[in-house]
Amino acid sequence: MRPSGRAPNQLRSVTLEPTFNKYAEGSCFVKFGNTHVLCTASVDKKIPAFLRKTGKGWITAEFGMLPRSTHIRNDREAVNGKQRGRTQEIQRLIGRSLRAVTKLTDMSEIQIKIDCDVIQADGGTRAAAITGSYVALYLAFKNLISSNVLSVMPLTGQVAAVSCGIYNKIPVLDLDYNEDIACQVDSNFVLNGIGEIIEIQGTAEGAVFTKDEFLDLLDLAQQGISNLIELQRNVLNL
Amino acid sequence: MRPSGRAPNQLRSVTLEPTFNKYAEGSCFVKFGNTHVLCTASVDKKIPAFLRKTGKGWITAEFGMLPRSTHIRNDREAVNGKQRGRTQEIQRLIGRSLRAVTKLTDMSEIQIKIDCDVIQADGGTRAAAITGSYVALYLAFKNLISSNVLSVMPLTGQVAAVSCGIYNKIPVLDLDYNEDIACQVDSNFVLNGIGEIIEIQGTAEGAVFTKDEFLDLLDLAQQGISNLIELQRNVLNL
Amino acid sequence: MRPSGRAPNQLRSVTLEPTFNKYAEGSCFVKFGNTHVLCTASVDKKIPAFLRKTGKGWITAEFGMLPRSTHIRNDREAVNGKQRGRTQEIQRLIGRSLRAVTKLTDMSEIQIKIDCDVIQADGGTRAAAITGSYVALYLAFKNLISSNVLSVMPLTGQVAAVSCGIYNKIPVLDLDYNEDIACQVDSNFVLNGIGEIIEIQGTAEGAVFTKDEFLDLLDLAQQGISNLIELQRNVLNL
Amino acid sequence: MRPSGRAPNQLRSVTLEPTFNKYAEGSCFVKFGNTHVLCTASVDKKIPAFLRKTGKGWITAEFGMLPRSTHIRNDREAVNGKQRGRTQEIQRLIGRSLRAVTKLTDMSEIQIKIDCDVIQADGGTRAAAITGSYVALYLAFKNLISSNVLSVMPLTGQVAAVSCGIYNKIPVLDLDYNEDIACQVDSNFVLNGIGEIIEIQGTAEGAVFTKDEFLDLLDLAQQGISNLIELQRNVLNL
Amino acid sequence: MRPSGRAPNQLRSVTLEPTFNKYAEGSCFVKFGNTHVLCTASVDKKIPAFLRKTGKGWITAEFGMLPRSTHIRNDREAVNGKQRGRTQEIQRLIGRSLRAVTKLTDMSEIQIKIDCDVIQADGGTRAAAITGSYVALYLAFKNLISSNVLSVMPLTGQVAAVSCGIYNKIPVLDLDYNEDIACQVDSNFVLNGIGEIIEIQGTAEGAVFTKDEFLDLLDLAQQGISNLIELQRNVLNL
Amino acid sequence: MRPSGRAPNQLRSVTLEPTFNKYAEGSCFVKFGNTHVLCTASVDKKIPAFLRKTGKGWITAEFGMLPRSTHIRNDREAVNGKQRGRTQEIQRLIGRSLRAVTKLTDMSEIQIKIDCDVIQADGGTRAAAITGSYVALYLAFKNLISSNVLSVMPLTGQVAAVSCGIYNKIPVLDLDYNEDIACQVDSNFVLNGIGEIIEIQGTAEGAVFTKDEFLDLLDLAQQGISNLIELQRNVLNL
Repeated sequence: MRPSGRAPNQLRSVTLEPTFNKYAEGSCFVKFGNTHVLCTASVDKKIPAFLRKTGKGWITAEFGMLPRSTHIRNDREAVNGKQRGRTQEIQRLIGRSLRAVTKLTDMSEIQIKIDCDVIQADGGTRAAAITGSYVALYLAFKNLISSNVLSVMPLTGQVAAVSCGIYNKIPVLDLDYNEDIACQVDSNFVLNGIGEIIEIQGTAEGAVFTKDEFLDLLDLAQQGISNLIELQRNVLNL
Repeated sequence: MRPSGRAPNQLRSVTLEPTFNKYAEGSCFVKFGNTHVLCTASVDKKIPAFLRKTGKGWITAEFGMLPRSTHIRNDREAVNGKQRGRTQEIQRLIGRSLRAVTKLTDMSEIQIKIDCDVIQADGGTRAAAITGSYVALYLAFKNLISSNVLSVMPLTGQVAAVSCGIYNKIPVLDLDYNEDIACQVDSNFVLNGIGEIIEIQGTAEGAVFTKDEFLDLLDLAQQGISNLIELQRNVLNL
Repeated sequence: MRPSGRAPNQLRSVTLEPTFNKYAEGSCFVKFGNTHVLCTASVDKKIPAFLRKTGKGWITAEFGMLPRSTHIRNDREAVNGKQRGRTQEIQRLIGRSLRAVTKLTDMSEIQIKIDCDVIQADGGTRAAAITGSYVALYLAFKNLISSNVLSVMPLTGQVAAVSCGIYNKIPVLDLDYNEDIACQVDSNFVLNGIGEIIEIQGTAEGAVFTKDEFLDLLDLAQQGISNLIELQRNVLNL
Repeated sequence: MRPSGRAPNQLRSVTLEPTFNKYAEGSCFVKFGNTHVLCTASVDKKIPAFLRKTGKGWITAEFGMLPRSTHIRNDREAVNGKQRGRTQEIQRLIGRSLRAVTKLTDMSEIQIKIDCDVIQADGGTRAAAITGSYVALYLAFKNLISSNVLSVMPLTGQVAAVSCGIYNKIPVLDLDYNEDIACQVDSNFVLNGIGEIIEIQGTAEGAVFTKDEFLDLLDLAQQGISNLIELQRNVLNL
Repeated sequence: MRPSGRAPNQLRSVTLEPTFNKYAEGSCFVKFGNTHVLCTASVDKKIPAFLRKTGKGWITAEFGMLPRSTHIRNDREAVNGKQRGRTQEIQRLIGRSLRAVTKLTDMSEIQIKIDCDVIQADGGTRAAAITGSYVALYLAFKNLISSNVLSVMPLTGQVAAVSCGIYNKIPVLDLDYNEDIACQVDSNFVLNGIGEIIEIQGTAEGAVFTKDEFLDLLDLAQQGISNLIELQRNVLNL
Repeated sequence: MRPSGRAPNQLRSVTLEPTFNKYAEGSCFVKFGNTHVLCTASVDKKIPAFLRKTGKGWITAEFGMLPRSTHIRNDREAVNGKQRGRTQEIQRLIGRSLRAVTKLTDMSEIQIKIDCDVIQADGGTRAAAITGSYVALYLAFKNLISSNVLSVMPLTGQVAAVSCGIYNKIPVLDLDYNEDIACQVDSNFVLNGIGEIIEIQGTAEGAVFTKDEFLDLLDLAQQGISNLIELQRNVLNL
């Protein structure tokens, strides 16, 4: 029995609110239950030095959590003077995931900076951030096409993410915080619109898991992500 | 004529949404028109070293702006490794303003940490932050009283803030971004519930102003803030 | 009765020693009683990026306090690895104040860097710093004119500053440290040579003040600053 | 055909040199072909604050690469003033992997700090670091048992790691640098002594992969890691 | 011929102004010609952790240069966020030099923090800093004895320093800036009151020197320092 | 009697292993007994700004100690976010020493970056680092000549270093850790191939020494360094 009463393969209520921000070229406010993340996509005419004169663009991401997005207030990273290791891990993952569905050579030496800021965290923040960032990124590209900066859509497919874990020995989809802190295995799956794998992370701190258990988690993820992909298509009218 | 079509003494539409955050002891999502600020008040049992064994509590504040809260994306302070001077100025102002209406000796060696995070900026961020933080702080204190941690309400009055300026030679209330970048004089007023002054800041970069002009601004501020005070009373049922 | 025995509207003994430093293009060692500040103005051929090719110049300021300029030794900011919030507030104020009396378009893409270093602090450090920096800046501009780098004096007027406060319920001019830590209201005024306002800051930590009290402080400031303006004229032979 | 001429399921020549360092409680110099990593395990009587008075111990890891461990010299992190995101990702992975085979409640509030420093990098640095760190950690625990600080061996099993990838469309084991930069899929597997999964990371930057491809990689990893486990047993006389 | 017209073995005009600072327990404003350094000695009841419960005290030093103490303005270290390597070298030297003439076991777990801040630099800053710091330190100790915190003077002798170099092939005493940048060999000598050596540093960037040349420099240093020792005795009435 | 049983003028066993690193243009693994240092020389086509368009090259050095190179584990500087003062002192010394035997005008606007990383420390780390770096530098220059980037060897001579000290009142050569922590005087000598002095550092913390004692140390250093110079010639076939 899950603390939330959900079925093992049941997502939390997920909503995607596009264009919540009046300045960003693309934006999306994503909620996975009580996990709330603001995602913006900002167009930057400057690309990293290693891409200059290559004709390629770039997508990078930054991630942050408001100090009181969590049960206990966390120190503000800007005050500490550095980002935590976990923050850097997540923002690198978001960037890789979005680049995996983008044809960089269609971006014409433009950089898109994704910002994912968690205003309330209840597990699955990186999954929500990836799922919402795709929407923000799509909208930013559409803006660049409307304004004739780009001529084709650089996105080659959709991308969404979900966490899965083994909780009370049962594989479950879309862990919330109560499950996250008590589960034996914690994994994150980033898949594209047709269920292929972009990124897999599976961790068993203080435990282990078998190949079969891992395949169960992957099955759950494929089910859940197909729903997220559908939701993205709805808000973007794809 | 103001860009927004407002009368010189007209506030933008202001809303205060208390308890937007499910974890914080007190919280308020404040909007001054298109300026949107999330305010949380977090109880911390540890007080600063200089107050230990004095029986006094403390209120401190931190301020941040999401990178794409602005027209042009700003660097993330956590990535830069330090807070900007402007950020520090504002968070110090928020802390002083709230302490000015709090009897620290009634706080029983508890610290409240205020976090104000701007998710969209259209001028007046510090004023909105102070106005919303008061609500978050009040709710946190009420929580501490309900749970018998405190026996009396440490707040001795209300506090709210607004910016005023001279725009096209006319004193106007509650500057938005278009006015802010074009005005000759920019000032911020922090007043208590009966119109007394807690903090005044007036700046004329590349210009000057007279005593009479300053008094006009103060008059506008007193009008505007009495409305903000009323709004606070409504949402808090005071 | 003031701790120093001064009348409420009496400045401390103020001295301005121009050209104390043999390298700087302009310099002034300013004393407000026991508050001693070294001010230098350094010409820099590089201007900030946002001003390149605009024909405009820039004035910026940095502020510091020697570790033992205070009663109790303060940590050295260079060792801590960052400037305090208060330091940043003050150096931003100094820069704004000087730019308010300078026609940047007459500076020909030159930057002047002001350094104010407090070697002994007894209240009013930012007021002394602004008052002395004006002298240093004037001398630097004169040097640039003598050497035919500039053709006209970019300064459009003088600027000086003083702090005022309400001490034992009486408005007093030019607070020293003993008054500063005990006063109900602390304010800083930056005025130009004809008494117009460039910057006003009034703070009542743990208290409030009325419009009339504020006007009393402004009156004191105008008196005091007219004396400082006169002193500047004397040392500069204006 | 692999650049090195190896068969798809062939490890590079792997050596483990225990106790290369005369001070550390445990140490191992590990080589995966031209990837050379120095691993030390240092006993620290201080544990992190969150574990005090719990009876539990802790294992943490730090990772670094000498500036010229790579083809092109990298900036020294100590000079830059911060660790890269990739560095933090790796050191967190090493710590989790070792804790997964350790019974922390048998460590008696002792902390072991693992340091992995790469002196030459040719792909697979994190895999080599984990494989070598296990040896260093085992030796440190044996030392603590010999000196009667611990009474039982806290390790509950072995742990080793290897990278696998899809290179020229063929799944291959133990990627070297030439394969790493050209492969479509890059994955790291951390397994225990009986082939169970501790951590899985699979990344397809600019590509995707299927479940079957992933299972092929896992198969390779299980073969390769069983060899590494055997090598560890040999040098430790298990 | 030296640029200043001095004889090879001639010091610049040296002055020591004790107690220039009204707060510090000991202070001295030292001038070696146009090199001007403010030295303060601050008593700190907290000693470094490694000395707690040993009965020993400690002396540490910090060094800084005002940004425009030099011909060309230097960046402010507090703005850069770190001290330069040269700064750290010098402050470590000052601390060692003073500890060499102090019986730490007579300091009763008190720490003295020396601050040396250069307000104008014309060569020989570290030598001036050491020479002036001794005076500040002596005065601080005298204060501690007067106030019965210490019962005996912990200083076991005097210490002073001077730079020497080979300029135009001739060994000269007390290099000024013009000599410093042009000399073949640059050395610093720290000697005690009877000419014994506490610290020697000799550097030949882009050149070399012989034992005999070095002995010539040492001879000059012994002459010069005996004068500095005498000056210290005069201002301290020893 | 020395703890190691060596004669007063006896070096530890010294070995120089050239080209230990497969990527660096020059490298040397140097051992002075149990002090083990990895030295690499990396060619960098970018030179510091102050040398652009001068036709000159540059040599710079960075130094580091692995956390467990010492008896007690030291904090990792990259984690602390800054290099220690001692580290900076040493890396500046290495750079100066190598530049002293290099004709920078023969380097053709190329920079060589030396990295010295201590993997085990038993006293004399800076001396070993300088001695080994010379070998790495020589090899890098030879590479640049072979590849026709440089036409002449910029090195004008050899350089090596050793520490000497007064231990139990006897001058001894090449201090190991046990002697280092117990000696009255600690000095480092950097000499060229014919015994001339490049750099001298002598320190007597809590003690003093005389000219004659210093000359004894210099004599020892000249003996020891002539052996190191010979060793360098052997491995480089000079």
